This record gives sequence, structure tokens and C-alpha cells, in this order.
Amino acid sequence: MPSEEYRNASPAAPHPPTDTAEAAIWLWTQIKAEARRDAEAEPALASYLYSTILSHSSLERSLSFHLGNKLCSSTLLSTLLYDLFLNTFSTDPELRAAVSADLLAARYRDPACVSFSHCLLNYKGFLACQAHRVAHKLWTQSRRPLALALQSRISDVFAIDIHPAARIGKGILFDHATGVVVGETAVIGNNVSILHHVTLGGTGKMGGDRHPKIGDGVLIGAGATILGNVIIGEGAKIGAGSVVLIDVPPRTTAVGNPARLVGGKEQPIKHEECPGESMDHTSFISEWSDYII
Amino acid sequence: MPSEEYRNASPAAPHPPTDTAEAAIWLWTQIKAEARRDAEAEPALASYLYSTILSHSSLERSLSFHLGNKLCSSTLLSTLLYDLFLNTFSTDPELRAAVSADLLAARYRDPACVSFSHCLLNYKGFLACQAHRVAHKLWTQSRRPLALALQSRISDVFAIDIHPAARIGKGILFDHATGVVVGETAVIGNNVSILHHVTLGGTGKMGGDRHPKIGDGVLIGAGATILGNVIIGEGAKIGAGSVVLIDVPPRTTAVGNPARLVGGKEQPIKHEECPGESMDHTSFISEWSDYII
Amino acid sequence: MPSEEYRNASPAAPHPPTDTAEAAIWLWTQIKAEARRDAEAEPALASYLYSTILSHSSLERSLSFHLGNKLCSSTLLSTLLYDLFLNTFSTDPELRAAVSADLLAARYRDPACVSFSHCLLNYKGFLACQAHRVAHKLWTQSRRPLALALQSRISDVFAIDIHPAARIGKGILFDHATGVVVGETAVIGNNVSILHHVTLGGTGKMGGDRHPKIGDGVLIGAGATILGNVIIGEGAKIGAGSVVLIDVPPRTTAVGNPARLVGGKEQPIKHEECPGESMDHTSFISEWSDYII
Amino acid sequence: MPSEEYRNASPAAPHPPTDTAEAAIWLWTQIKAEARRDAEAEPALASYLYSTILSHSSLERSLSFHLGNKLCSSTLLSTLLYDLFLNTFSTDPELRAAVSADLLAARYRDPACVSFSHCLLNYKGFLACQAHRVAHKLWTQSRRPLALALQSRISDVFAIDIHPAARIGKGILFDHATGVVVGETAVIGNNVSILHHVTLGGTGKMGGDRHPKIGDGVLIGAGATILGNVIIGEGAKIGAGSVVLIDVPPRTTAVGNPARLVGGKEQPIKHEECPGESMDHTSFISEWSDYII
Amino acid sequence: MPSEEYRNASPAAPHPPTDTAEAAIWLWTQIKAEARRDAEAEPALASYLYSTILSHSSLERSLSFHLGNKLCSSTLLSTLLYDLFLNTFSTDPELRAAVSADLLAARYRDPACVSFSHCLLNYKGFLACQAHRVAHKLWTQSRRPLALALQSRISDVFAIDIHPAARIGKGILFDHATGVVVGETAVIGNNVSILHHVTLGGTGKMGGDRHPKIGDGVLIGAGATILGNVIIGEGAKIGAGSVVLIDVPPRTTAVGNPARLVGGKEQPIKHEECPGESMDHTSFISEWSDYII
Amino acid sequence: MPSEEYRNASPAAPHPPTDTAEAAIWLWTQIKAEARRDAEAEPALASYLYSTILSHSSLERSLSFHLGNKLCSSTLLSTLLYDLFLNTFSTDPELRAAVSADLLAARYRDPACVSFSHCLLNYKGFLACQAHRVAHKLWTQSRRPLALALQSRISDVFAIDIHPAARIGKGILFDHATGVVVGETAVIGNNVSILHHVTLGGTGKMGGDRHPKIGDGVLIGAGATILGNVIIGEGAKIGAGSVVLIDVPPRTTAVGNPARLVGGKEQPIKHEECPGESMDHTSFISEWSDYII
Repeated sequence: MPSEEYRNASPAAPHPPTDTAEAAIWLWTQIKAEARRDAEAEPALASYLYSTILSHSSLERSLSFHLGNKLCSSTLLSTLLYDLFLNTFSTDPELRAAVSADLLAARYRDPACVSFSHCLLNYKGFLACQAHRVAHKLWTQSRRPLALALQSRISDVFAIDIHPAARIGKGILFDHATGVVVGETAVIGNNVSILHHVTLGGTGKMGGDRHPKIGDGVLIGAGATILGNVIIGEGAKIGAGSVVLIDVPPRTTAVGNPARLVGGKEQPIKHEECPGESMDHTSFISEWSDYII
Repeated sequence: MPSEEYRNASPAAPHPPTDTAEAAIWLWTQIKAEARRDAEAEPALASYLYSTILSHSSLERSLSFHLGNKLCSSTLLSTLLYDLFLNTFSTDPELRAAVSADLLAARYRDPACVSFSHCLLNYKGFLACQAHRVAHKLWTQSRRPLALALQSRISDVFAIDIHPAARIGKGILFDHATGVVVGETAVIGNNVSILHHVTLGGTGKMGGDRHPKIGDGVLIGAGATILGNVIIGEGAKIGAGSVVLIDVPPRTTAVGNPARLVGGKEQPIKHEECPGESMDHTSFISEWSDYII
Repeated sequence: MPSEEYRNASPAAPHPPTDTAEAAIWLWTQIKAEARRDAEAEPALASYLYSTILSHSSLERSLSFHLGNKLCSSTLLSTLLYDLFLNTFSTDPELRAAVSADLLAARYRDPACVSFSHCLLNYKGFLACQAHRVAHKLWTQSRRPLALALQSRISDVFAIDIHPAARIGKGILFDHATGVVVGETAVIGNNVSILHHVTLGGTGKMGGDRHPKIGDGVLIGAGATILGNVIIGEGAKIGAGSVVLIDVPPRTTAVGNPARLVGGKEQPIKHEECPGESMDHTSFISEWSDYII
Repeated sequence: MPSEEYRNASPAAPHPPTDTAEAAIWLWTQIKAEARRDAEAEPALASYLYSTILSHSSLERSLSFHLGNKLCSSTLLSTLLYDLFLNTFSTDPELRAAVSADLLAARYRDPACVSFSHCLLNYKGFLACQAHRVAHKLWTQSRRPLALALQSRISDVFAIDIHPAARIGKGILFDHATGVVVGETAVIGNNVSILHHVTLGGTGKMGGDRHPKIGDGVLIGAGATILGNVIIGEGAKIGAGSVVLIDVPPRTTAVGNPARLVGGKEQPIKHEECPGESMDHTSFISEWSDYII
Repeated sequence: MPSEEYRNASPAAPHPPTDTAEAAIWLWTQIKAEARRDAEAEPALASYLYSTILSHSSLERSLSFHLGNKLCSSTLLSTLLYDLFLNTFSTDPELRAAVSADLLAARYRDPACVSFSHCLLNYKGFLACQAHRVAHKLWTQSRRPLALALQSRISDVFAIDIHPAARIGKGILFDHATGVVVGETAVIGNNVSILHHVTLGGTGKMGGDRHPKIGDGVLIGAGATILGNVIIGEGAKIGAGSVVLIDVPPRTTAVGNPARLVGGKEQPIKHEECPGESMDHTSFISEWSDYII
Repeated sequence: MPSEEYRNASPAAPHPPTDTAEAAIWLWTQIKAEARRDAEAEPALASYLYSTILSHSSLERSLSFHLGNKLCSSTLLSTLLYDLFLNTFSTDPELRAAVSADLLAARYRDPACVSFSHCLLNYKGFLACQAHRVAHKLWTQSRRPLALALQSRISDVFAIDIHPAARIGKGILFDHATGVVVGETAVIGNNVSILHHVTLGGTGKMGGDRHPKIGDGVLIGAGATILGNVIIGEGAKIGAGSVVLIDVPPRTTAVGNPARLVGGKEQPIKHEECPGESMDHTSFISEWSDYII
């Protein structure tokens, strides 16, 4: 049995102070302590940990460095991107707060996330989301060609395609993240968890408001496709592989292709918990699946 | 409401002259004008725009440079790939015509495509398709190891896996494009639009003609899987997430897993429009979906 | 008809001696002969073939070199990775046997695989799997930060995300492979074939044993999602696009979203062949599909 | 005759305002205007000019970017160096004043220097000197390992080896510059011009003050070697290829191996002009040479 | 004694046909044969030999590739330089003839030059000279900023600084070549041999014709410094370490600092042979040296 | 006065045990301790120090890694060079002993050498010499094309050109080292110190034994040129800028151009000390110089 191997992989994660400013300091202190511990235990990784984390004086510098080196190409140099990321994160406390919230989201929701530094360095969903936040800011400043160039680099490097106009809240977990597509007029609320291969897509060749609106606390399972200007109510759960083309009420679960509500269209079962945070992918869905197989 | 932000994202796109030779000149002139405008508005991007577009004397040079730099690796140098692409595009007017047709397809069908240069620089589906056209030419010239090496680089860099033997028409839009897989004996007609995560797959370990044949003007939604030597009739529409293992008649819509025809097997509803060009992902499908959720 | 083009793409592949040690020598001899033949036929590729294969004295050196160059980044240098891979493969005959078994699996099961060297150089599924084998070994040696860094590089470069704790048998074919996700407590048996976009995912935010167990000889079709600590019996077949949340008995076929057993829940049809090896994606499934469309 | 070709190579260079702050602004404006003119005339160079000059908002940003990209290596990343240079130049007005003075020195003294941007981009002597200024500051801050690493990179990249402890004034022209060696306790005054292959070397294995002290306005010809803690008086001229091991009085000329004073040891000829600025390499020296050949 | 080791290092070199066109074909054939022989004998180098020589269809393609990869930087991409070199060499038969003449010069004059491919790949003096020929052509086409950027790259990469306006004949051997400096108005005739650290320098800050004119067949020893608009007559020899500031008559030898004529100013000894071709560095000079030491 | 700044730059260096095997262990321990101390004091350099020194298990691994990364190019990959260096150093204890002796030589003779790690990482003379030792071994194994390719890379990267056939003893200090040229049949004894721009050159276009033989303990000053198959006796000193074409007796000093013996041809002054170790560049020479200026 593989039980012993992973049992302690994700020990009870420590929690930050409630004050935002203190929390940011606390988080950066945690990250450096984790990196220092790993560098000591693994000399082969120490150089990497120093260059990405331990040589930097702040989380935004570390993140800007890491994103600049990940997203650069032979025609978009790392120094240019580093400058762009650092300038944006340094001057926007909202963005920095979102970075922190996303780190906490990964650490507390994903049992495979063993440390904050693990997420900061290795989670392509986290990295793509932060780079998108910068691209989105550029978009709102009418620096659209640069925003679109960033989108393209994110899509090449991470296989995650988020239009820079899409609006994304805080506390987001893009888990595994490969293949995620988020369209131009999509809106994602706070504390949402989205698995890989999820599409928030449009409806055709007409412009205008044509992509999904995802409420707070929603959980969207792997490979789900949500198309059109539909509303996924707060706390709803979308089953893996579902195809959703119409609104889903709050705190209900939609599954299947085409998606149907668990409990039925008329009286769908309402759940209490917030699936975006509990990450409960399969309860209710399993039952429905049990019924069939 | 996000409405103001994206309203003018894709203004009415200008159209080329009808004469092919004039159209190619017109297109390159448009691309340079767009790049020049963007370079002036965004100095941080000017270097990129000059290196990829404005320093080149023709579209095929620009594209060859861009593909060479995107697809190179430490063991396949950019100069070698640049040479290969440039030689192929320079000597084959059919390929150049296909490049132009694909640029127009993206610009006119995808409301998020704000300019020709945006597609040329940033659309991995467009870039992968043009690199495939070169790989396919190599394949037909019995330069198979080189064609397969190109396929591999395209799959690594863009996460798009098109077998070099696959035959692809003109006016193709691979939208978002991550995860597309097209098998060895697949054939794709003209004016087809294919979303991300679409598979045109085979049927097993036997060789021979074993992949789908996609007619002109077909639209294949995100995540659709079409397997085997089946025929998708011209103008058909395949809904997102569908799994299709048998023929679909022309101008009909197949949805679901397994896919069924909208309107029923016996008397499927026929649509007038060409969904590959109208990009109408959701009409008919939404209704079917409405019925259930 | 495209028939002539691909007819001879995959000639009857030669078979190795039965003795393991002899087979390894035979395999490396085959690979070098293939590379030499291709280098002579295609000078543009000769440099690549010499650097990746022909300049090396053994398969593990060639593979370590190739993986080191593919997976390196500006902060994780190729020399470090090369050293790591070479040390691991050189000292672990089990790993080397698995490499050989995977090469044979690709060559004999995938009709598009024209040679062993084609798989060694170009198959991202093969390369990701071998890099995972090294990451897994690091994980079992409690070198977890390094194992997780490797996982991240594999996910960035190949768009394949396999947790280093996941246990994978021999004779595995990851075909096309883009988008594959394998969770921390997943176990994959021997002679399994897995198509692209397949998820072996977890059930939520609790740790513990929460991912699928895949028996020997299973075939999992493109885009299938299997969630939770369920057992897919040996020789079972999971249809493309299926969503599976409960156990599937041996030698049966599950299809659809949610998945159901072909032949019905009570008396599912049992097949004789081992689909992981026969790669028969569509028989049975086609019939079921025929019934509906 | 080559006369027409070079006649206008170095038109009368414009001069900056006398106020230091205004002069810095004026200089950066000149550099951008030159780069813009060159970018328009030469599309092949436009990308380079935008990335190095035109995309930056200040001379120190442009210089830091250029030095970071020139001096980086696979183990010392460009982003790290860029950060280091930018932080140092941004916080030290003395360093910025020295940068400006050196640019003016090259432009006004070297007839082959056709523009300020030509010096900024292309003069390895200028670039090495500015990188040394940063290394020197690090040295005085007791950040010696980093200072020595920079020295090493400068020596590798530019073949110019200046110990970070060496103290260098303003308005320095290192012309051609390959092979220059400046030892640990050397001091160079203001408005000095030093040709390539010049050595300001030490006297042996003892530490302590053991390198030359070069007065203001000195000119040191190509290949001259000055060894030991000797004083070269202000306005002195050292002939090409000279070997100097003892003091040289102000405004005199030393030539030969070993060096002797023009006019004789007792009554050397004193010149009026400042050779470091007039760059008169050969008057007096030619006469002496004429006498012999 | 080390005699056996080097005895056969440079076997009697084969000679080309007298017809220029045939000679070029013969030379390229020789180079490919040498590279093929070396690739077979040394697998570790085969990749390098294929990428630089054996994958190319002509000498100008091979040379352009090699120079592009040597001289590129993160801001001047290899593809751009490759294009520039290839276009220039392809369209100018004079340049191609000079390339061939320089290869022959190295092969026949330098006993350490064991093959044409050795010179083509490894001689920085040869490579710098060919890159200069392209820079010079750009200069004469008034593409001066690009010519100066090339000069700068050559100086960074090879530590050889040749002003693009300098005019250089054919059959030139720059042996070892590190530290060579050639000024703007210098002219070098045909069949000249120049050792490392040689300076053909100017006289001060005035523009105009101010650099040496080197006649046909001259040999300039290591570290010699020649300053000002002086004439070095055809077939003259300049001893190592000499400092020359006035004209040197044809077929005479100048040595020392300052240089004097061997045999005396009034009746210098005239030699018969052409030292630029015989490479006789030391006869006459040794005698003069013998006299003193 | 700059005296305080450098006074403690080179503290009394510690000395190794006399036993060779113990000394090697002691040296590597010292290097790691130095690197650890520097990494702690300077986080910006820690990544560099870990990747080059602290992540490695032995001096030969560290050196091979560093050389591989320094000398690699786009066509000669770092992994190939790393492999080559590591294999050579690992299997040849003589080479490893020479590496140690050279590190000690730099540390004890050069007052600017503050630590062993400083030399290992930053001294191009040291690095070029070790790479030459590998090239020389290849040469003696008749792997000449590879040896010559290494020579070329060393000359490009470090501006130091040593023919791979040249034989070099142990305990060598190449100080500053830019511009050093050592010919094919040159031989350098033990405990020799050679400054920058020194040439050990040949005599013409004939092959055969044609380069200098340098005895044990010789010191050769900056810019000295020694030509032909002459013998520089053990313990001799060659003054900076000297041009030597005939034998120099042991323990004498030659200076000037052409070189003469200090004390005169007939009765040259003999010195007791070993200048190659004492590094006394200027005594005797200064006197001679004093006499003249």
C-alpha cells in the first residue's frame, strides 16, 4: 500500500495573521524558511532556490524574477519582462494581495501542495494566474498589444490561455491547470477552484459579452466546458467533463454532457459547503455515477 | 458590467482585394501598418515587433523567423529551422496562399482577434498549422525523420500534435488550440474551425486509413473527440465535449457523449449557415442543453 | 485517397531477443542503426541525431542528454539535470528495463511510431514518463523538493503532470500525451496504454489514498477522466471522453459521461484481448455509439 | 583614395548644456534621437535599438539593460545583473555623472566615434568601465565576492581586466580597450585616455600599494606597460609600446622600452596641451622615431 | 623531445585548380571531405561538424551559419545575422573569392593549420576577417550603424577590432589574431600576414586619413604597433614588438621600439622573398637580436 | 591613500598537508568553506556559488561543470563538454594534481587572489590552463579535431590561445592571461608564472620544433614575446615588453626590445630567488629603467 509514502506529504499548513500587511510579511518569511530548509537538504537544488527565492528581498521580486525567466523568449527578453512584472506588482497593493490569497488557496485546498514555496515555484496555474493579473492591468491601461503578447507567452509556456480582458478574483486555485481556456468577457469570482482542461468559452463570432460568469466559491471539475454568457451561481459545483450551456443556480451541482442538476431540474439538491474551498470533487457526483455504472 | 471594455476590441476588419497576388501584398501591408502603430504606442514591445515583423521584407520571412525562434531548441538551432521554413514558403505559392487564408480566417471569425499581426505573432493554432504545412510538405517529399522532428517540436512548444501526414485545407482556424491532436490519415477540408482539445484520432494499433475526414466548413467545438475513419459532412457542427465514432451528415449538428444528431437520428435538423465560418458554437446545442438542465 | 502515403509508415517492427541483457544491447544497436540511416538520408537532421544519439555510448547516456536538454531552464541548468538523470539511470537496472519496455510498447502498439529512435527523440509521453521515473525515485529517497521541481519542469515542457509519488509500471504507452494528469496516490500497472488528456484525479482536499488504481493491460481513451480511489480492473477499457468515478471490473468496457459498462451494469460484456496492448479504441464503443447517432 | 568615405564620419559633435542636471537630460535626448534616426534608416537594426535604448525611460535603465545582457552567463542571469546595475546607478548620482562624462569623452576625443549611442552600445571600453564603476562600489561596500565575479565577467566578455579596488576618475576614454589590465591599487585621474593593451601592473607577490597612479589628462598609448607604484604626472604622455617603471614628470612624454623622456632625462620637453584630451599620439614621438629609422 | 608528436600535424596541403570557379568547388569538396573524416573518427564532434559544415550546401551557407551563431547575442539574434551574412556572400562573388583566398592563405602559410575545415571552424582571425568583409560592404552602402554593430560584436567575441571602413585585400592571414586593432582609414594589401596584438592605429583626435597603408606581401610580427598615415612598402617585414611611426621601404625589415631598419637607415638590407607568404618571422631579426643579448 | 582598502585583501593563505591525497581533500574542503562563507554574506551570489561549487561532490565535478558552461556554444553544448571534462579529470590523477598545484600557485603568488574559490571561479588563466590540459590529453590520444575545437573555444571565450600540443607543467600561474599565445611545440616547465599578452611563438611557415622551451621557475612579464626554438633557462626572468629571440641563461634577467641580459652579455647578473614563485617583476629591471628615464 502506498499509504505511508504520502501520509505526511502535506502536514497541517500554518496560518497567517489576520492583518493583511502582517500576513504578507509572514508569508514571505514562511517561503524563505521553506526554501532555506530545502536548500540545505538538497544541494542540487540550492542554486535554483537561491536564484528564485533566497536572493530576493521580497515576494514580488522573487515572483517577478521567476515569471520573467519562465515567460521570456529569444524575442521577449527576461529583463524586459522582469521589469514589467516588478513595476506592476510594486505599485499595486491589490495585485500583491491577490498573489498572497492565491498562495494560501493552493496551500490549504490542494493536499499535494506541501509548501508555499512549492506553489510559488512549481504551480503553473498559480504562475499563469499572476502573469494574467499583470496582463489584465495592462489591458485596462489600454496597453493591449503588450497584454496580448503576454497572453500568448503564457499559453505557449504553460498551455493556459486566459484572455487579458478576463476578470479574476482572489483566492483562486487553478489546479494542474494545463489546457485551461478563459475567454475575453469571462468573470471569475473569489475563492474559486478550477481544475485542468476547463473552458470558459464564447458563443460564436459576434463580439460583446459572451463568456461565463463564475460566482464566488465555485468548483469546476477537470475537463468541464462552460460556454456562453451564463451564470454559475456562487458555491455551485460543476462535475468533471460536464458541458454547461445554461445558468446553474447557487450551491447546486451540475454534471454530465449536457449537464443536468443533481436532484433534478425542478428541485436540485442544495449543498451547504463551499466546494471552491472544500474541493469536494466527487460527493453527489459519485452517487449519480454509481447509479449508472 | 464589462461591456465597455471589450466593445471595440475587434472593430470591423478590413477586407483584402479579390486578386490573390494583390491580396497578399495588401495583407502584408496591413500587418506592417498594425505593427508600426503598436510599436509607436508601446515602446516596450517595439523591439519585439521590429524583430518579428518590421525588419522583414515579406510575410514569409517574418513567419519563418518567428517559427524558427519559437520552435528551436538547444539541439535544433533557430538558423536551421529558419532556413527550412524560408526555403519551403519561398518556393511554394500554395503554402503562402494557405498562410494568408488562415490569417483571414482568424481575423474574421474570432472576435478576440484584433488584428492580423495579433494572429501572426500570438496565435499558437495559426503558428502550429503553418509549421505543420511545412512538415507535411517534407513528409510528401519522403523527408520523414525531419517532418517527425518538426511535429515533435510543435507538440512540445504549442501542445498541438498534428501528424505530418495529415492533410489540411485552407482557411483553417485552430482557436486557442492547446491539446489538439490530429492523426496520420486525418483529412481536414477548407474553412474549417476547430477549437482546443479536439481529437481527430485513430482506432487502434493497425495501420491504414484510420482517422476522420472533416468536410469543408465544419465547426468542431472544444474538447470534441472524433475517432476512426468517419466522415463529418460539409457544414456539420460537432458540439463541445462530444464523442463521435460514426459519420455525421452534412449541415447537421452532433452533440453529446456518445454524440447524437440534433433533431434525431432519422430526421436531423439541417442548418443553412456554414458553422465553420459563422462560428456559432451554441445555437441548437443550447436548446438541447436547456431541455435537460 | 491518402492510402499510399502511410501504407509503409510503420513496417513490421523487428523484435528483441528474449534475454533482458541481450535485448537492451539489441535495442541500442537498433536505435543507432536507425539514427545513422536517418542522418545519411537527411543532412539537415544529422547534427541533431549525432548530438542526441550517435555521439553517445549507451541508451541511458543518450536519454539523459536528451532529457537534460529538454527539461532545463535558465535556472535549472542542463548539466545539472544531465548529471541527475545519468546517475539515476546508471545505477538502477529496473529503471533501464522500464525504459526499454516503454520503447517497445510505443513501437509495437502505435502504428504511427515508425522506429525506436522516433519514440526516443520525439514522443513527449515517453520522455515525460522516463523523467517521472527519475522523479519518483527521488521521491522515494525523500528528495522531495527536487522531485517536485522535476514534476514542474515536465508539466511546463510537455504539458504532462504526473505527481512524483505516483507509481507506474513497465511497458507504458502515453500516446500523444498532452494534458495527462496523474495524481499523487495513483498506481498504474504494466502494459497500460493511456491516451492524451486523461486524468487520474483525486477527490478533494483531504490527503490520503485518493487516486485511481489502474490494472495491467488497461486502455484509457482520449480525454477520459477517472476520479477517486477506484479500481480499474486488469484488461479493462475506458472509452474516450468517459467520466469514471467507481470501480470498473476486469476485461469490461466503460463508456460515457457518467460512464456505464457496455453490456449493462449487471452483465457487462467481457472481452478476451488485452486492450492496453491491442489498442482497440473503438470496437464495442462504436456499436454503442452507432446505436445512438 | 579612401578620403570621401570617412570625411564626414564624425561631424562636429554637439555640446551639452553646462548645468549637470540639464546636461544629463540633453544627453539622453541626443541618444534617443540618434537611435530613432538609425532605427528608421536600418530596419534590421531597429529591434536592437529599441530593446537597448528606445524602450527605456532613462540612460541608467538602458545602460543597465545592455550591461546585464552583455555580462550575463548561464550561471549569472541577466535579470540579477540588471537589477544590480540599475539599483547602483539609480542611487548614486556620482556614478551617473561619470557615465555621462565618459560618453562625452569618447564622442569628442575619438574621431571614429560617430554618435553617443555608438559609444553606449558598441564601445567595450566604455561598457567595461561603467561595469567596473559598479564593481568598485560593491568593493567599497565590502561586497567583494560579487565585485570579483563582476571583474571576471568583464574580463571574459570584453577582455578587459580591471581590479574592482582600482579607482578611476571621470571623463575616461578606453579606446579599443582589448587587453587593458588595471591592478588593485592603481588610481586613474580625470580626463585620461588609455589605448588598448595598456597595463597598469604590480611589482610582485607582496600586497600593499603596488600599482601606478595616473594623473589627470594623461594619454597612454597602445601597448604601454606601466609597472609598480609610480606616478605619471598630470598631462604626461606615454608612447605606444613603452615600458615604464619609474615616475614620469607632468606634461612630459616618455617613450621606448625602457621608456626615456623626450628631450632627455635632465631637460625633458614640456608640452602645453593636455594629451588625454587632444589624443595626440604621435607628435614628438614621431620625431624621435624619425631620428632612428 | 616532442618531435614525433607534431611532425605530421600539417601534411603537405593539396592545391586547388587554377580556375577560380573550379577552385571554389574544389575547396568546398575538400572541406566536406575533411569534416566527414573527422566526424567519423570523433563521434563527440560529429554533431558540431554536421551543424556547421556537413548539413550545408555551400561554403557561404556554412560560413554564414557559423558566423551567425558565433556573433549573435541576446539582442542581435542569430537568424538576423545569418540572413545578413548569407545575403551578402550570396550576391558578391568578390567576397566569396576573398573567403577562399584567406582559407588557402591559412592552410599554406601556418604550419599549425592542419586542414581547411580547421581554419573555417576554429580560426578567429579568419572568421573576424570574413565578418569584417561584410561589415565593410555595409559601410560602403551607407548602412553604417549596422556595420558598427557588427564591428562591436566581432570585438566582443573575437577580441579583434577592425573598423568597418578599413579596406582589406585577399589572401590575408590573421594568425592567433587576439588583440588586433585596425583603424578607420587603414588599408591592407593582398597576401599580407598579421600576427596577434598588431595595431594599425591613428594619430589623434582629428579625423581624416590617419592610419597605416600596408603593401602587398607584408609580414607584421606579434605585438607590432604601426601608427599614423605611414606606408609599409610591399614585401616589408615588421618585427615582433616593433613600434613604427614612419614609412618603411619595400622588402626591408624594421625592428625595435622605435623601429629601425635592419642594415641601417641609409642602406637597409633588401630581402628577396615575400615575408607575408614565407612567414619568416625571425631571420635577420634573430641576427640583430643575437648581436645584443 | 588607498592603503586601508586593500591591506587585508589577501590574508596569509593557509597551506595544505604535504600528502597529495590529503592535500586534495583539504583543498576542496577549503573551497567549499570559502564558497559557503561568501554565499551567506552575499545572497545575490549564492545561486552562482551553489551551482558552480556547493552543489558538487568533488573539485573535478565543480571544475568540469564550470568549464562546460563557460566554453559551451550553441553548437557545442554544455552537456557534451561537461561529460568530456569530467571523464578526463576523473580518470587521470596527474591532471587532478596539476589542477591543485595551479590553484595553490595562484593563491600563494598573486596578492590579488583572495581565496582558492576566487581562482577557481574567476581566473581565466587558470580555467584556460585546465581546459588546455584536457585538450592536450585529447591531442596525445590522436583526438585532434576535438582538441583543436577546444583550443578554439578557449581562444574565443578567454582570449588565450594555447595549441593543444603544447606541454605545460604544474604550478603554473597565468596572471590576467588575456592575449597569451603558446605555440604547438612550446614546452613550459613547472612553477612558471606568465603574465598577460605573452607570446611563445614560432619562426615561420615550416613545421617542426619551432617554439620556446621555458624552464622551471621562470617569470615572464606582461607583453613579452619569445620567438623560436629557444631555451629560457630555469629561474630566468623576462622583463615586461621584452622581445626575445635567443637563449636566456638560467637565473638571469633579459629585458628590452631586443632583449639584453641585465649585467651584460658576458657577465649577466645571476639572482638567487626563483622569480616564477617570487613574482618579483621589477627589481633589477627597475634599476635598468632608472638608468635611462
